[in-house]
Amino acid sequence: MTTATDHQRMEKIVSLCKRRGFIFQAAEIYGGLNGVWDFGPLGVELKRNLKDYWWRVMVRERDDVVGLDGSILTHRAVLKASGHEDTFSDPMSTCKHCKRLQRADQIWPQIEQSDWYDALAEMFALGRLDTPNLQRWAETKGRRDAPNLAIVRNFPVTLSWLSERLERTGGGAELPMREFVQHLATEQFNQTGLVTPCPHCGGELTEPRPFNLMFRTNMGASGDDETSIAYLRPETAQSIFVQFKNVLDTARKKLPFGIAQIGKAFRNEINPRNYIFRSREFEQMELEYFCAPEDGMRLLDYWLEERLRFYENIGIPRAKLHVLTVPDADRAFYSKGTYDIEYEFPFGVQELEGVAYRTDYDLTQHQNASGKPLEYFDEETKAKFVPHVVEPSAGVDRTVLALICEAFAEETVTDEKGKSETRTVMRFHPRIAPVKVGVFPLLKNKPDLVAKAREVHALLKPHMMTFYDEAGAIGRRYRRQDEAGTPFGLTIDFETLGERGDELRDTVTLRHRDSMQQERVKIADLLGKLLPQVM
Amino acid sequence: MTTATDHQRMEKIVSLCKRRGFIFQAAEIYGGLNGVWDFGPLGVELKRNLKDYWWRVMVRERDDVVGLDGSILTHRAVLKASGHEDTFSDPMSTCKHCKRLQRADQIWPQIEQSDWYDALAEMFALGRLDTPNLQRWAETKGRRDAPNLAIVRNFPVTLSWLSERLERTGGGAELPMREFVQHLATEQFNQTGLVTPCPHCGGELTEPRPFNLMFRTNMGASGDDETSIAYLRPETAQSIFVQFKNVLDTARKKLPFGIAQIGKAFRNEINPRNYIFRSREFEQMELEYFCAPEDGMRLLDYWLEERLRFYENIGIPRAKLHVLTVPDADRAFYSKGTYDIEYEFPFGVQELEGVAYRTDYDLTQHQNASGKPLEYFDEETKAKFVPHVVEPSAGVDRTVLALICEAFAEETVTDEKGKSETRTVMRFHPRIAPVKVGVFPLLKNKPDLVAKAREVHALLKPHMMTFYDEAGAIGRRYRRQDEAGTPFGLTIDFETLGERGDELRDTVTLRHRDSMQQERVKIADLLGKLLPQVM
Repeated sequence: MTTATDHQRMEKIVSLCKRRGFIFQAAEIYGGLNGVWDFGPLGVELKRNLKDYWWRVMVRERDDVVGLDGSILTHRAVLKASGHEDTFSDPMSTCKHCKRLQRADQIWPQIEQSDWYDALAEMFALGRLDTPNLQRWAETKGRRDAPNLAIVRNFPVTLSWLSERLERTGGGAELPMREFVQHLATEQFNQTGLVTPCPHCGGELTEPRPFNLMFRTNMGASGDDETSIAYLRPETAQSIFVQFKNVLDTARKKLPFGIAQIGKAFRNEINPRNYIFRSREFEQMELEYFCAPEDGMRLLDYWLEERLRFYENIGIPRAKLHVLTVPDADRAFYSKGTYDIEYEFPFGVQELEGVAYRTDYDLTQHQNASGKPLEYFDEETKAKFVPHVVEPSAGVDRTVLALICEAFAEETVTDEKGKSETRTVMRFHPRIAPVKVGVFPLLKNKPDLVAKAREVHALLKPHMMTFYDEAGAIGRRYRRQDEAGTPFGLTIDFETLGERGDELRDTVTLRHRDSMQQERVKIADLLGKLLPQVM
Repeated sequence: MTTATDHQRMEKIVSLCKRRGFIFQAAEIYGGLNGVWDFGPLGVELKRNLKDYWWRVMVRERDDVVGLDGSILTHRAVLKASGHEDTFSDPMSTCKHCKRLQRADQIWPQIEQSDWYDALAEMFALGRLDTPNLQRWAETKGRRDAPNLAIVRNFPVTLSWLSERLERTGGGAELPMREFVQHLATEQFNQTGLVTPCPHCGGELTEPRPFNLMFRTNMGASGDDETSIAYLRPETAQSIFVQFKNVLDTARKKLPFGIAQIGKAFRNEINPRNYIFRSREFEQMELEYFCAPEDGMRLLDYWLEERLRFYENIGIPRAKLHVLTVPDADRAFYSKGTYDIEYEFPFGVQELEGVAYRTDYDLTQHQNASGKPLEYFDEETKAKFVPHVVEPSAGVDRTVLALICEAFAEETVTDEKGKSETRTVMRFHPRIAPVKVGVFPLLKNKPDLVAKAREVHALLKPHMMTFYDEAGAIGRRYRRQDEAGTPFGLTIDFETLGERGDELRDTVTLRHRDSMQQERVKIADLLGKLLPQVM
């Protein structure tokens, strides 16, 4: 359940992200591209830090994982073998009147958010059928909000079927609301049975049919024919499976070992939603960890723990993560076990990452379809087999959103004059914060202060992302960096210049974002003090 | 001019890249996807190092540049305004017989590489028309290699037109070869004039027509209609222009300042070629550096120098780079000056990067098309204007290929037994080398050596990409890392363990890849010695 407060919180986050340059809508000046986002100056650094940290702990610091960077354009045969071409689809219904396609499993939630549903719910809440009121609605607001609803198009016939139904249920008291709405959408009950209406116009929907979620394009010069079809990959995993043998032959690894990849993937979501959570273009961080069949279940649990630790290390506390053991019935048929790692977003508990034991399904599919052996030869046991695989698959954009939601805080603080105000602060872990240090000369019209501040700035810049700011009161500069999530602020003042005695010469004020505590630190000690915290 | 040696060198490079896991053909097990490549374990690290260094010097270490990460899926209106939808095309001819499309400007080079051209060139070289020989060819090899060539399809009529022509030129001595071939392709000279044949089958080509190079897809649920068209971006630059105002409003920068982006772009090249040099999916590193109009020409030269320095800093010597001042006639009409930075590839001198002064063309186009102001207000002069822009635009894959070509070396070395052999070594600059250090216990069956080697490995691993290898003779392990381009090798031997006296205890052999010189280094000094070299 999400509350009005959650909703408000999410709105504030979206607004801050735009205002501070984390996230912009793609092609905003042209009205935007639905479900597609651009990352601004702060967003791109946040995303880079997240991806770099993933690569560091998943690839660089491990002896048993190597990287891959596969193409986005994907050969049709790959996605035929993987099953995506035939089954990677959502059930969709089309409205016979307005022709809009809609995801069949989201029709009722959408109906229930519509204006016309609200009006009908109010009438229905009275407990009996107020025919004159219903007719008035059908002739006025109904005509505007749900012009293709049966009760609007053909009041008498639709009403007669409904009345018959109501008589049987004693005036409607026991009729479920959804069935009531269906009756209002049904003109010829004896011919069609109950109809579910289109959320947008009230018209009759077709039976659900599968709609493939892959983006298709045509490649080469032969035009738009069948032979030139290629897809944008719907996940990064498939290029890992397809290149398994090449990597095995070149990287000299023994089982268990993994191939990791970070990259864009694309799904033509019918209803992109929840900001950057479900978008049409997104980025994945996927590891395919190959192993002997007998190690699969053990490694599934191993990787779940590794991944949970990862989220803690970037500042998402264990308490906000939920581990869902996906029930047998909801798992892919080939998977022997799947965990979803979920996070408490303001819009609900939603999946960040899936950790799935996919058995030998993918490699076997590609081996069969390509006719190329994708087996592993175990030199010790002399056994030859298709490896099994455990896949921790995380969403970059989802994790960025979780980091942003987790970081966002508003608190009441009291300024020097005793006036209380709201401080907005992004409490990013220093490791993933877009900017690590703000550098501020106390006053911008004192050349000595500015020169010294520039010097401190130049000292840190080769090692971490810094931001130099000399504009405005120091308190306002702090606040700006609080909103950007910069964990450390350095102020260069008259003490730094030695004007208040030699003891404080060449020291600066180090302000901590979260506690707002300040301390005096020698310039010479800065790098040694800050660098370990931001790594 | 490229020579046979150059060609051979390129073949060796391609072979090494596959064998050592730098680059694989996409979907290789399914026959490959033409013009699309995957980067293997070494390739992905090389590419990461290149991109990270670019980001470091172009964004992080500068105060006047911020980053952006825009989407690949692009709103049609963006590419309409930028001119891509109407004019981003190559002239294409279709063969009326085999229906193949070909780039009009590449038809003759392709013809001249064909088998049938070689045969005709030989006959023509005799200086006179050997009719029986030509007829024999037309009835045998011609039928196989160029079945739709007029002389093959209709020998007598085609010959008669050719004969008439030859009579006029005194037996053919003065007839240019291309014209001779065109005559052989022309059945009805009086009706069609001279025809240019299809390189693949000899058939008649249509007049050239423009073929748009953008990949198109459809977005949303409304199917394949016009309103749902979106493109894969043909360059990263456009999202920078489109988000200019958002970045300006959030990043608090004054002119001149830049917006930088690294990301994939896509062009449906008709003839992808030269390995990863011209591929259909590629990555760009682009900076759009906005400035006042009067600073444009100066900044164009500034950025040329900056970019040349960049290539030197990653190991591409200035002497192998050529700066082409693009002549007025070849520049985009809106550009006031463009430099191409070219590199001496084995297949010819080809463009790595363009540095272009694009004036205010792009922002003005988007301002006009979107109706949204994209102006800058100068607080000092109170002037309001559309900024001009200088664009250094580099290709990631091209630079990777240049790095690989530059690094590749074969040298004759003499082993301990006095036998000479060829050493293949990739002389990558340590900064961009995929693996920085190889760590080798001298012998793998001595647990003390292995434990110590693991210790050294663990010491370095958090700071740089390392590779631990205990398999085979130490000389072979060195050679394997030479091929991977690893600049440093560390051998842990009995001296390290202190078995040859205390002085050498806790020292290792540091071997330098290029000179093969070895020196003794204390383990405690390793990080301090190596880290600055690989940064």
